[in-house]
Amino acid sequence: MIANDLPQGMTRNTISLLLGHPDPATVFTPELHEAMQSVLNQPQAYKALQYGPEQGTPGLISYLVDKVNREQDLALQPANMMLVAGSTHAIDMIARLFTKPGDIAIVEAPSYVDALHVFRDQQIELCSIPMDEHGLIVTELATLLAQLKSEGKTPRFLYSVPNFHNPTGITLSEERRVQIIALAQQYSFFIIEDDVYRYLGFERSLPTSFYALAQGERVMSIGSFSKTLAPGLRIGWLTGSPEAIQQCVNAGTTQMGGGANPLAAQMVMEYCLKGYWEWHIQRLQALYQQRRDTALAALSQFMPADVIWTTPLGGFFIWITLPKTIFAQEVKRLALHQGVTLSSGEGFFINFTDGQHNLRIAYSFASLSDLEAGIKILGQIIRNLQHP
Amino acid sequence: MIANDLPQGMTRNTISLLLGHPDPATVFTPELHEAMQSVLNQPQAYKALQYGPEQGTPGLISYLVDKVNREQDLALQPANMMLVAGSTHAIDMIARLFTKPGDIAIVEAPSYVDALHVFRDQQIELCSIPMDEHGLIVTELATLLAQLKSEGKTPRFLYSVPNFHNPTGITLSEERRVQIIALAQQYSFFIIEDDVYRYLGFERSLPTSFYALAQGERVMSIGSFSKTLAPGLRIGWLTGSPEAIQQCVNAGTTQMGGGANPLAAQMVMEYCLKGYWEWHIQRLQALYQQRRDTALAALSQFMPADVIWTTPLGGFFIWITLPKTIFAQEVKRLALHQGVTLSSGEGFFINFTDGQHNLRIAYSFASLSDLEAGIKILGQIIRNLQHP
Repeated sequence: MIANDLPQGMTRNTISLLLGHPDPATVFTPELHEAMQSVLNQPQAYKALQYGPEQGTPGLISYLVDKVNREQDLALQPANMMLVAGSTHAIDMIARLFTKPGDIAIVEAPSYVDALHVFRDQQIELCSIPMDEHGLIVTELATLLAQLKSEGKTPRFLYSVPNFHNPTGITLSEERRVQIIALAQQYSFFIIEDDVYRYLGFERSLPTSFYALAQGERVMSIGSFSKTLAPGLRIGWLTGSPEAIQQCVNAGTTQMGGGANPLAAQMVMEYCLKGYWEWHIQRLQALYQQRRDTALAALSQFMPADVIWTTPLGGFFIWITLPKTIFAQEVKRLALHQGVTLSSGEGFFINFTDGQHNLRIAYSFASLSDLEAGIKILGQIIRNLQHP
Repeated sequence: MIANDLPQGMTRNTISLLLGHPDPATVFTPELHEAMQSVLNQPQAYKALQYGPEQGTPGLISYLVDKVNREQDLALQPANMMLVAGSTHAIDMIARLFTKPGDIAIVEAPSYVDALHVFRDQQIELCSIPMDEHGLIVTELATLLAQLKSEGKTPRFLYSVPNFHNPTGITLSEERRVQIIALAQQYSFFIIEDDVYRYLGFERSLPTSFYALAQGERVMSIGSFSKTLAPGLRIGWLTGSPEAIQQCVNAGTTQMGGGANPLAAQMVMEYCLKGYWEWHIQRLQALYQQRRDTALAALSQFMPADVIWTTPLGGFFIWITLPKTIFAQEVKRLALHQGVTLSSGEGFFINFTDGQHNLRIAYSFASLSDLEAGIKILGQIIRNLQHP
């Protein structure tokens, strides 16, 4: 896939600042190998190869319920959770079951491009709210809601990536989360909390989740093993009211396909119950923090003075804002010719032109030396565009 | 799951004629174990744990394309196929991408209950066509199409399980397939060919597939490893025109989640390339043929004269039609009290009352002695209801 991005005739290795993928060296550790072997060698392994319980492998749900309760001081029951085949499955299922075409949803600007794509495939109308360094701007949300109401419209849900947001790396402040929940109650919409980067924080504490702040009311919260273990397993989890979860369990696709990836879920359960995941998460936090630090240092060193960027406290991404004279597409094109891939900002916005001066750097995938070399190349390209 | 079906206080083992699941003893063979171990021990295993190519693991697509071309005398290219997370994923994706709410689809009466559920979740309006022993009745389809046309309506697609149909076990005749394709061209609808039982035939030949008869025009055909290997792997494949496949590959969910279950797909590829699947299919055909024979013999021996049933030439299911005085729900309830589970017919029809004198027996899951004992119990229950 990376090789395909290379312009014809290019032979040197690509530096990928493009992909929001975990470091390849972290996805298949000896501990995961051991857990997989252990499942395959159990006499009961065949059960994980049949259709699974629709809600998902019970032992993994129990593990996750206990973990979330302990960490967030909640009192979830297993009925509050189901396993999903990654956050994709959860977002798609929620959109299908709880909206109808033409419904309005509110997203952050910018927002996770593939989620926008899924919502569009479901024929949902999207409105977006700009963000600042504390996340989506609540006064703008309130204005939009009032305006929609004056037109007789109510949004069905708000979709947010509150922690280490994709693509900006920004974390939504707790104060704003509380205000957003109040608006959700006032205007009767629900919140999809896409919290897949939650365990990739570099500091001890995080703002309280939407789910915990609202005590689960009007919130469905999504977690995933894709960022902290291995995307190829396709396992995540969805937390919500027992009624909402039951509705998802009773959906046609769930009834037809059985529980989410029973074999992979059994392997993940084995891995988690041995304590490996907790340990792996700590290792990942240190790894990505080092990469973030290297990326930030390189940005400081190599970027012209009028380029600005975010300082993520976790996750995979840094968001760069270029001067208005410099277009991200042009930087991206020139970078590709020097073997550096990255995303320009347009696709993350409903209105493409909103992102034409933004770049997203993923620091999760490239080595420290590649990160530094790639950002140096970007800095040179931008300088050359400024002073040709 | 089986245990949960038991009425309170029941202690004896349940005989399940309910589940359309493969025999549990067949899903985790030494050959599959070997293929899985082989993947986990490859230095490149980590690649299968990342996000995969959106179209699916290329080596497995190549294997399937070659197999289908060889068997059906086709000239498919890899661009005609993508991997899916089971037929569920394919049906759901097709319905989402190629219909809009309120669109009309035509299904067989009876039809696969979970597919109906998925279509309903997508707010598709369903019309059904009755079946006889040769499959859906084409004259009835022609009448419906003409009637819809007179109302200014066009169905978007026809959904069919042409081989060893669920729930009836009936195979649609080739003559009718040709007629249906002609109607699809005349009325501009497409055909979803759900062919997941294809490789479970007990005879040498099968009618030519919709896909082959139409040379792929207006047909999307679905295959799966769930019936002939292991449902818990969640791997199937979708065949269609390059344009339709590309549209599925470009869908939000595909772009967001990556290819279908990359780890499981790699394991299935390894298993297939070693020739194990072909060999396993032959073993399954013999196994299920023996079960079908045992079930048919027990039906002949134990059922009253006015009960009739289908004679499947493959697959998992026999469809029983009771006299009009006997209600399937009552038989099901009494059977459960004697530890025998099975499906009554209502859920397989759009109009529930159409199935109230039908039962579906799955012979795939129970042992030969359980099959015989279960059918004996059903026969006694029906006799008792006739002559209380």
